[in-house]
Amino acid sequence: MSQPVTLQQAAVFLCGAQDVFILTHKAPDGDTLGSGFALMHALRQLGKRAAVLCNDPIPARFAYLDPHPDDQSFLPQTVVTVDVADTTLLGDKLQSYADQIDLSIDHHGSNTGFAEKLLLRADAAANCELVLDLIEAMGVALTPQIADCLYTGLATDTGCFRHTSTTADSHRAAEKLIQAGADLRSIHRRLFESESRGKIALTVAALQSLRYELGGRCATMVLMRDCINQNGVTDDELEGISALPRQIEGVQVGVTLRQYKSYRGYKVSVRTDGRVDASAICGRLGGGGHRGAAGCTFEITDLDEVYRQVLDSVRQELEQQEKLDASL
Amino acid sequence: MSQPVTLQQAAVFLCGAQDVFILTHKAPDGDTLGSGFALMHALRQLGKRAAVLCNDPIPARFAYLDPHPDDQSFLPQTVVTVDVADTTLLGDKLQSYADQIDLSIDHHGSNTGFAEKLLLRADAAANCELVLDLIEAMGVALTPQIADCLYTGLATDTGCFRHTSTTADSHRAAEKLIQAGADLRSIHRRLFESESRGKIALTVAALQSLRYELGGRCATMVLMRDCINQNGVTDDELEGISALPRQIEGVQVGVTLRQYKSYRGYKVSVRTDGRVDASAICGRLGGGGHRGAAGCTFEITDLDEVYRQVLDSVRQELEQQEKLDASL
Repeated sequence: MSQPVTLQQAAVFLCGAQDVFILTHKAPDGDTLGSGFALMHALRQLGKRAAVLCNDPIPARFAYLDPHPDDQSFLPQTVVTVDVADTTLLGDKLQSYADQIDLSIDHHGSNTGFAEKLLLRADAAANCELVLDLIEAMGVALTPQIADCLYTGLATDTGCFRHTSTTADSHRAAEKLIQAGADLRSIHRRLFESESRGKIALTVAALQSLRYELGGRCATMVLMRDCINQNGVTDDELEGISALPRQIEGVQVGVTLRQYKSYRGYKVSVRTDGRVDASAICGRLGGGGHRGAAGCTFEITDLDEVYRQVLDSVRQELEQQEKLDASL
Repeated sequence: MSQPVTLQQAAVFLCGAQDVFILTHKAPDGDTLGSGFALMHALRQLGKRAAVLCNDPIPARFAYLDPHPDDQSFLPQTVVTVDVADTTLLGDKLQSYADQIDLSIDHHGSNTGFAEKLLLRADAAANCELVLDLIEAMGVALTPQIADCLYTGLATDTGCFRHTSTTADSHRAAEKLIQAGADLRSIHRRLFESESRGKIALTVAALQSLRYELGGRCATMVLMRDCINQNGVTDDELEGISALPRQIEGVQVGVTLRQYKSYRGYKVSVRTDGRVDASAICGRLGGGGHRGAAGCTFEITDLDEVYRQVLDSVRQELEQQEKLDASL
């Protein structure tokens, strides 16, 4: 197990480190990349060599995090992970580092303690909130470039301050980053106002399949594989579309059925506002997840049958919820 | 013209006031109502009589701002406006107060100076930011109820911290309001995660009409009156739909053509990201507005002709922009 360290201890460790590899998680998002590049820029400001590594290519929309990538090759003397809860999330290409991680900087309560030292803040909405405090503790000035990186992680992991994970500390961090020169206009345009044409087309198809069930308390949507493929939509974009049914007035349970790449079955995503238990709905069908978001899979091609089973489990959960509400 | 007052002077004035009417603007939004009800709760906490007045009924989704409305009738000794730039915005029902307004609390640089005293902060993204500081200056404790009201204005006027008007101060205000107990989960659900079925249906129809023009730099959408009426969509919701074309990748100019209620013409909304000048596009067609959002109207029923003229003006503006970019 890792040795837990304080912000101050982690800062002292990094200030004494040389030739740092910063590992991000696979299928990288704004928070792991923002954390990684912010730390890289901070370490370089201290005159150190530092590089960010990722199993997958950096998505083009995050290219601004490292506007002048140079591929300085060096061997690491120090290995750090950011926003990585478990070494399996490093992906195949970075597995060779799994046993030599000096410091893990993370905000997942589920961190498996794989690193020698662990700097953890499980109640942070974004890992970038923690990295901000760390960089300040290292005595590094917040440049606009660092502010852009940290704001990116903060804004993506909090859904631009909409998700319920957002705390007063998230806003305190945003205040500092804007003062340090984070370019909100440009970041927001890249992250939140740039839907692909394919996503728009798939959204239309998905919304056309919308059905209201169980007196309007449940809404369902189907994403067929041909339509997904035709529109070249990424998994990231699919997640956004899956959130739609629950956002409709009166809907307590939003369900999205997504056909497998193999066409041999369906992935089911269930979203609720947390009052109805999504994980119980999916648990009954062999899946699981959180109270507000859960999933399960069906290895059958009969869509009607999948639909029937899912709806049956939703009905059971709504009935249990009603009994509970009535007994209060 | 009004006498400009400081936060402290406005606080002293309100602490000495009795029987306060707080006037909001017509077609009320979250910021005018949040400002009004927060101030009402604060004044009542000081043992005063206070009431919020509005030309229009309070929309149901804002009912939580005043969960126990009581219609205590009293005659005002003091009249205050919140988030009102001009007395015409009070609406017909409140016009009788237009000449007797003691204090205007506003964040519009365009405030016409109609009140005796004016507390203005033109760089505030939301008027509620100013009201927060005012309530603190009055020495009133921020209750969760007041925090809910102020957070509502802050979140609606900043588009939940997405609009470019958002500043470090907006986040500082959010931090305080969350610490004071603002119920983010419930407010976000009401304001941002409750699309009407009608809006969803109209969005699908609108997106089906989507056309990409001028090499994908312009996207257009048409909202036909029958479809709007069938789905019972409000003007507020229409604004949200009109924002969609511009949010597509590569689109610099988003255009929405909306058929009149009379069926005798079209209202055209043009949105850009501010690099291309929307007001110039609409100005050429007899309309106007801001650089990022402008509009114009056509009193003709021939949709193709409207489309041709609008597209022609967009083309001219894009060409001018290109020349400008090339000359830099």
